[in-house]
Amino acid sequence: MEKCTNFDRNVTVYEQTQMSNLESVLSAADANTDTALQRLFALLRMPSISTDPTYHDDCVATADWLVAELNGLGFDATRRDTPGKPMVVAHGGPKDAPHVLFYGHYDVQPADPLELWKSDPFDPQIEEGPDGPMIRARGASDDKGQLMTFVEACRAWVETTGDLPVRITILFEGEEESHSPSLVPFLQENAEELKTEIALICDTGMWDGNTPSICTMLRGMVAEEIVIRAANRDLHSGGYGGPAANPIRILSHILASLHDEQGRVTLDGFYNGVHDVPGNLAQQWESLGFDPKDFLGKVGLSTPAGEQGIPALHQIWARPTCEFNGITGGYTGDGFKTVLPAEARAKISCRLVWDQDPHAIRDAIRARVRHMLPDDCEVEFIGHGADKATVMATSDPAFEKARKALATEWPNEAVYTGGGGSIPIAGHFKEVLGLDSMLIGFARDDDAIHSPNEKYNVKSFTGGVRSWVRVMAALGK
Amino acid sequence: MEKCTNFDRNVTVYEQTQMSNLESVLSAADANTDTALQRLFALLRMPSISTDPTYHDDCVATADWLVAELNGLGFDATRRDTPGKPMVVAHGGPKDAPHVLFYGHYDVQPADPLELWKSDPFDPQIEEGPDGPMIRARGASDDKGQLMTFVEACRAWVETTGDLPVRITILFEGEEESHSPSLVPFLQENAEELKTEIALICDTGMWDGNTPSICTMLRGMVAEEIVIRAANRDLHSGGYGGPAANPIRILSHILASLHDEQGRVTLDGFYNGVHDVPGNLAQQWESLGFDPKDFLGKVGLSTPAGEQGIPALHQIWARPTCEFNGITGGYTGDGFKTVLPAEARAKISCRLVWDQDPHAIRDAIRARVRHMLPDDCEVEFIGHGADKATVMATSDPAFEKARKALATEWPNEAVYTGGGGSIPIAGHFKEVLGLDSMLIGFARDDDAIHSPNEKYNVKSFTGGVRSWVRVMAALGK
Repeated sequence: MEKCTNFDRNVTVYEQTQMSNLESVLSAADANTDTALQRLFALLRMPSISTDPTYHDDCVATADWLVAELNGLGFDATRRDTPGKPMVVAHGGPKDAPHVLFYGHYDVQPADPLELWKSDPFDPQIEEGPDGPMIRARGASDDKGQLMTFVEACRAWVETTGDLPVRITILFEGEEESHSPSLVPFLQENAEELKTEIALICDTGMWDGNTPSICTMLRGMVAEEIVIRAANRDLHSGGYGGPAANPIRILSHILASLHDEQGRVTLDGFYNGVHDVPGNLAQQWESLGFDPKDFLGKVGLSTPAGEQGIPALHQIWARPTCEFNGITGGYTGDGFKTVLPAEARAKISCRLVWDQDPHAIRDAIRARVRHMLPDDCEVEFIGHGADKATVMATSDPAFEKARKALATEWPNEAVYTGGGGSIPIAGHFKEVLGLDSMLIGFARDDDAIHSPNEKYNVKSFTGGVRSWVRVMAALGK
Repeated sequence: MEKCTNFDRNVTVYEQTQMSNLESVLSAADANTDTALQRLFALLRMPSISTDPTYHDDCVATADWLVAELNGLGFDATRRDTPGKPMVVAHGGPKDAPHVLFYGHYDVQPADPLELWKSDPFDPQIEEGPDGPMIRARGASDDKGQLMTFVEACRAWVETTGDLPVRITILFEGEEESHSPSLVPFLQENAEELKTEIALICDTGMWDGNTPSICTMLRGMVAEEIVIRAANRDLHSGGYGGPAANPIRILSHILASLHDEQGRVTLDGFYNGVHDVPGNLAQQWESLGFDPKDFLGKVGLSTPAGEQGIPALHQIWARPTCEFNGITGGYTGDGFKTVLPAEARAKISCRLVWDQDPHAIRDAIRARVRHMLPDDCEVEFIGHGADKATVMATSDPAFEKARKALATEWPNEAVYTGGGGSIPIAGHFKEVLGLDSMLIGFARDDDAIHSPNEKYNVKSFTGGVRSWVRVMAALGK
């Protein structure tokens, strides 16, 4: 059969060569598993905790280790110092191939409370888990294990074919777990060097163990703190209760006014720029079999509380919210104090989708508060950030190429998912470099990232390496 | 003229004798002023801070000092130890005369912050003030100066006539500033000994410098803490915002539901037992010239916030409230945290008037919360006390006698006032001893009780002594 086909058309020969290349690279990746795990373990042993100055030198050493690894694979890799932790930037692959930017972060969360770990968080172990063997260490999943899936995929390509199937710029950050203070300035200063056709970010998870995902929608957010001030001092509720304005009461009225009985947000113009989920995407989401009872049941709830008539998964991925994240006023200690407080404050945040304008929504919040504020009271507004939603242009053929490539590796088709939260790096790539991001990762819900006993399934690691081998091949075509 | 009249009728002679007695007693009181102030200063030098165990012995010494003073005036006075600070109980006056219980407290608030005092809080000084000389010391007004007005009035009577015009039982407490833990048990154990016809409490103020007052209505209170629990842990507002119940939002809706647009409380049956202010009392209140703009202006407010159409003074003295004294939930520190909190809590208190039933109102609060609580959320209620309003039976002739007696001492007629807060001792006298209380005091709004630089006008002290001389005479008739 093969020979016959080979003689039929040259293009078939070419395709078979490519296929054969891909199979060889995948075989090489599989054959490398033991040494790849040794390299990952070396990386995991470095306590690169970015938030704690004690570990600054460890972070620098980790960056150097990555630079050496990448140079060893033929990349032109350098450590790029910043006012915080260094970046690692590397360039490789054929200059005339499609060009991708790959992002991961080498810093990790602190490991405490240490006493809750089953083993030393910086002495990685292979343990047998319910879903097969797993790597237990701080950073195993977030994000050292994930970024090494891409590095090992590069290794398999280089070892097998002598080069990479795509042109690659790598950016490893060392401050992701401490709010990335150096990232945007670094992107701005090095925009020309870092501009590619698309970004690949490996810091997310699969939908489930059999279903890879590409996250294509991330909600934005506008956050606002409101301080209502009434009397010029705390008052006694006996002497003033009645005639004196009570800021907790005013604040409660304002907050209660922000949703109607259907759970919709009542701010003027709030839904401007909110679009319907396209039919094909809605179908993909439908196919995920998301069970809101199960989702809520895990946190002790049972009744969806959001917009009536909107499926819970759509609420999280494609609908905006207005949530109250903190409130305080008056006496909050044990016992009772009959005070009429001078002030009360609330922290409000709206998750935003599609084309909602965070600045218009901040204005609408402030207008509502001012409208409901009694004449003799005052309000202070403290703005806490305003970011639009990030919605990837999945019409770019790279998305379908990657989705199909992932489908060949895993039992189920890959799905385009949303993300209820923000992943700031995707927004920064969009804003500073003009790049859409493909968020592809292999973490599992039970990886306990940021918690004691973080782990990464060996299957996530090996499947991740094989997935990147395939995605690179697909994007290189 | 006098002689003629003397011969007219015996009763006139008797009245004139009485009058002459009264004038003599008042003259004696005036003549005693310097030594009376010396005695008050001796009392003020004792740092009887009840809340601080360091000063326990000082409290006991203060009780002993008062016992000695009263025994020196012919009272049968004893120190009565309790698990806390001692009580002072004294009996005096003719057995067949009308019998009154006089209450004051000898303990004081702590004096800190000391650096804000112009002079040592326990080294009393006479200073010139805007309204004449004043006594500067901790406890000068609250309550040592006030209780000594009564003691010095007794002295003037005894020195002048050899006895008191009424039968008197004195009760001095040493724990008023630390929530009176021993008081109710002491009243219960000694009810027979302490029962009289009426109680006199000297721990309040005048309406203004020219207008004495008798406080006849005190608001009660029911206080309730509400804890709303939703998810079994704090959630990320990105991952759960929308479908997951937010306890701050639930709590805001509940609190906002408790008042209607007219400022009335919407709890079922809340106004049961609330009565109109009788016309003659309303007239007295009207005559006070209370200016709500001035009242609110002093604390930086201008617009009455309570029930629409109800004068502010009535709101404070004769109308119930539902106020929010504290609220907390979620992240309340600096900056922002996009948490959906697991719980939120509020402290609510209702000031009660007339015959409102605190227990029925607590039930109504709980019913409202349960009614508005989503099925998958939980509520915990923490009750914090439930006291009915105290409304004195001013139909008892003693009230009018005292009011007329005060009118002869001061430029303006005495008025029956209300009190927005509770004075627990009046409630305890009513509940345990079945006694109505006449709350007559001579403090001024600017006395800075509980604050640095507490003072008591010398005119409050001397006018207070003379007032008690007159009130005793009136009650003895």
